[in-house]
Amino acid sequence: MNFRLVFRLAGKTLLVEAASMLLPLCVALLYREDPTPFFFGIGITAGVGFLLSLLRSDTRFHAREGFFSAGLIWVLVGLCGAIPFYACGYFDSFVDCFFECISGFTTTGSSILRAVEGLPKGILFWRSFTHWLGGMGILVLTIALLPSLGARTLHVMKAESPGPIISKLVPRSSQTSKILYTIYFGLTVIMVLCLLLAGMPLYDALVNSFATAGTGGFSVLNISIGGYHNAVFEVIIGIFMLLFSVNFALYFLILCGKVKQALQSDELRFFLIVVALSVILISFNINSLYPSYLTSLRHAFFQVSTIISTTGFSSVDFDLWPEFSRMLLVLLMLCGACAGSTGGGMKCSRILLLLKCVRREIRQILHPRSVSVVKLDGRVVDEKVLHTVMVFLGTYMLIAFSAMLVVALDNFSFGTTFTAVVACTGNIGPGLEQVGPMGNFADFSPISKIVLSMCMIIGRLEVFPILVLFSKSAWQRV
Amino acid sequence: MNFRLVFRLAGKTLLVEAASMLLPLCVALLYREDPTPFFFGIGITAGVGFLLSLLRSDTRFHAREGFFSAGLIWVLVGLCGAIPFYACGYFDSFVDCFFECISGFTTTGSSILRAVEGLPKGILFWRSFTHWLGGMGILVLTIALLPSLGARTLHVMKAESPGPIISKLVPRSSQTSKILYTIYFGLTVIMVLCLLLAGMPLYDALVNSFATAGTGGFSVLNISIGGYHNAVFEVIIGIFMLLFSVNFALYFLILCGKVKQALQSDELRFFLIVVALSVILISFNINSLYPSYLTSLRHAFFQVSTIISTTGFSSVDFDLWPEFSRMLLVLLMLCGACAGSTGGGMKCSRILLLLKCVRREIRQILHPRSVSVVKLDGRVVDEKVLHTVMVFLGTYMLIAFSAMLVVALDNFSFGTTFTAVVACTGNIGPGLEQVGPMGNFADFSPISKIVLSMCMIIGRLEVFPILVLFSKSAWQRV
Repeated sequence: MNFRLVFRLAGKTLLVEAASMLLPLCVALLYREDPTPFFFGIGITAGVGFLLSLLRSDTRFHAREGFFSAGLIWVLVGLCGAIPFYACGYFDSFVDCFFECISGFTTTGSSILRAVEGLPKGILFWRSFTHWLGGMGILVLTIALLPSLGARTLHVMKAESPGPIISKLVPRSSQTSKILYTIYFGLTVIMVLCLLLAGMPLYDALVNSFATAGTGGFSVLNISIGGYHNAVFEVIIGIFMLLFSVNFALYFLILCGKVKQALQSDELRFFLIVVALSVILISFNINSLYPSYLTSLRHAFFQVSTIISTTGFSSVDFDLWPEFSRMLLVLLMLCGACAGSTGGGMKCSRILLLLKCVRREIRQILHPRSVSVVKLDGRVVDEKVLHTVMVFLGTYMLIAFSAMLVVALDNFSFGTTFTAVVACTGNIGPGLEQVGPMGNFADFSPISKIVLSMCMIIGRLEVFPILVLFSKSAWQRV
Repeated sequence: MNFRLVFRLAGKTLLVEAASMLLPLCVALLYREDPTPFFFGIGITAGVGFLLSLLRSDTRFHAREGFFSAGLIWVLVGLCGAIPFYACGYFDSFVDCFFECISGFTTTGSSILRAVEGLPKGILFWRSFTHWLGGMGILVLTIALLPSLGARTLHVMKAESPGPIISKLVPRSSQTSKILYTIYFGLTVIMVLCLLLAGMPLYDALVNSFATAGTGGFSVLNISIGGYHNAVFEVIIGIFMLLFSVNFALYFLILCGKVKQALQSDELRFFLIVVALSVILISFNINSLYPSYLTSLRHAFFQVSTIISTTGFSSVDFDLWPEFSRMLLVLLMLCGACAGSTGGGMKCSRILLLLKCVRREIRQILHPRSVSVVKLDGRVVDEKVLHTVMVFLGTYMLIAFSAMLVVALDNFSFGTTFTAVVACTGNIGPGLEQVGPMGNFADFSPISKIVLSMCMIIGRLEVFPILVLFSKSAWQRV
């Protein structure tokens, strides 16, 4: 392992993180709030980052280094990002701050805060801004801003970008990450403008757009988006949550004029079918709870959009819905968004590939001598990729079940324990029962909070970078 | 598809089923109960079986036919086996009878009966005897008894025997099935003798041995084995449940004098480690609930043994245990017993192969140029087998989650819905909350009962035979 280069990349990433704390610092100054939490945060993060970035090394950078640095740096970024929370005094312990910060960067949106209204605006701004930073990947951002690492950074993208197959938009990976961030930034700006036009105050429009763009879900109101009592806001946010759950490579195709090719994506079609079906089924299931079918449809649409995009906002308390709707939402939590988006979960493309593999198994039982391949978007998917996808799905469930066992030590109900882990691993935010949209993660023990934080990183980085960290041979100098 | 041969095999299987109803008929006559339910059962089953077995056909019998007939015949056997239940008048509807019968044959042990004490002894005998018949596979039994099908029956064994790799003990598959049934019969007799020696009445010893041997779990007492208030019974049954969850091929090795080779089985070791760890963890977790650690240990051992073997007896109401123990039991339900045993679940060997695949993925990230294979019992596992195992695990979860969605329409709690499906798909029996060891499946809607029955068959036949039934091209004449 080329530790020096890994640490140098870590240093650069921390410098980017420190720089991004300047924005909430400005917000705090603007609202005449105490800026010291951010001075602490920026000072320590920049200091450690500067020292690490001084390291000199050769440029050996393989898949190994890519996965290892993704795993390591995300933990470091979480630790440093928690400093302003810790220094502001509104959190009970550093574990709580770490949980909240990791929940932000991984775009989960699970909170240990019982109430958010009344917290300083600068702190809440930082909390939501971590969603935006983590959404497309903080390492990808670092490479886009500071490409002078001199190493093959494709492996970082492979480790940090979600999905089974990484689409290289252009040959150079630093160029690819710049394009991705430009699309991301552009869509965010459009969303802010839409919300402003609909009448949302600037501060709220910014933080809600950050949380939507990263598919995070932290809100500045205690009862989330439902607190605005504004159907237009809900529709705008609902649509943008779906837009941010789509593979960004498709937007690049559209920008290049290849609209038809973009719309023919198998994953996009699967995603839209799942969304449409879920909205219809839930709207009928909850129809008796609301005055009109249109209201049911609006709430069904918003909740389906927020869960499958793994954002985790809410417009109503869906924990009070009938069991069918609740179960469907849990399944959408497991499924998640499209690969190459800011969303979490197992990803639609992997579920789609699983379905295609099942169909192939049946075909091979019926016609043993036929040779059949699995195709996605008309292209044959390599057997090695398929195998990795299947192993991923198994490992994902295995890790979730192991985490449930630890969290079960807190003796909450089966539904709470199960959905807390699923919501954290899938980077959704709220689950059901005690961690439902009106609940929070405050009552969990510190051990559970740490395990759930690890689940969030494992979900965000798609399992393997964190497993590499736990491998003995990864820590050997080669 | 060679339908004629499939139906001929179905006919022969129904004849075996009709013949096996003679045993509960004798019990009914012995206890001077009304024998007419069995006359109906035997008459219809034998009649249909006789007509089908008259069909003449060529001997084309491939994997396709094997899977198709396993899927189809299990449904038929369930329908015919339900006739005595329906005719006895103690069940509310035919759906209930079908559920109970499928629960018997698939060795699940989930019951729609609110109380079993007071039912005729003949009916309860048939209910428990279906466990024994289904345990090693009713098609395997048919081939062992009536090998004159003249076709390659290995494919039937492949479709009906649980596990990723079928061990052919001897070259001829009808011979293999005879050996398996002899071991099965021998172990059952030893168990009956042990229970008799410990003081259990003959009738109880027989039905409990049937339920243990098939890892079924139907009991003749309302509160299951706990109702005997006898620690010796619990220990005997606990040990035999584990014995019946071990790959029967290992017993064959032991009988051939290859004891060392049998004990070196990777799956056996994994299974024993999981059992030991679970017993220790649960015994500490429930220690405060019982007067002495020995009592906790006894209950932990019995419950772990009953759940991982997928039997589903209970000696206490484990639904009242702390969440950690309950969650661990749910995970054991998913894991299940060893391949090639009478137990259900995903099977230890598949979980073990998943873990080995994960380790290989990590190794390949760290050392991309290394070529590594996955080994089980010192032998390289074929990549095709590995792929099928991974697809199986994904499909198993996918089917379970889909079933949960339908069962959720009944609006029970998340824990009830989730564990009802897991307990049925894994062929365990009881779940948690309303379907806990002191609960039952009576309150589910007919649709849920049919879906849960299908889950049991899907779990017992390990997914693909039933999926083949739903494939359009399987129904084409070739």
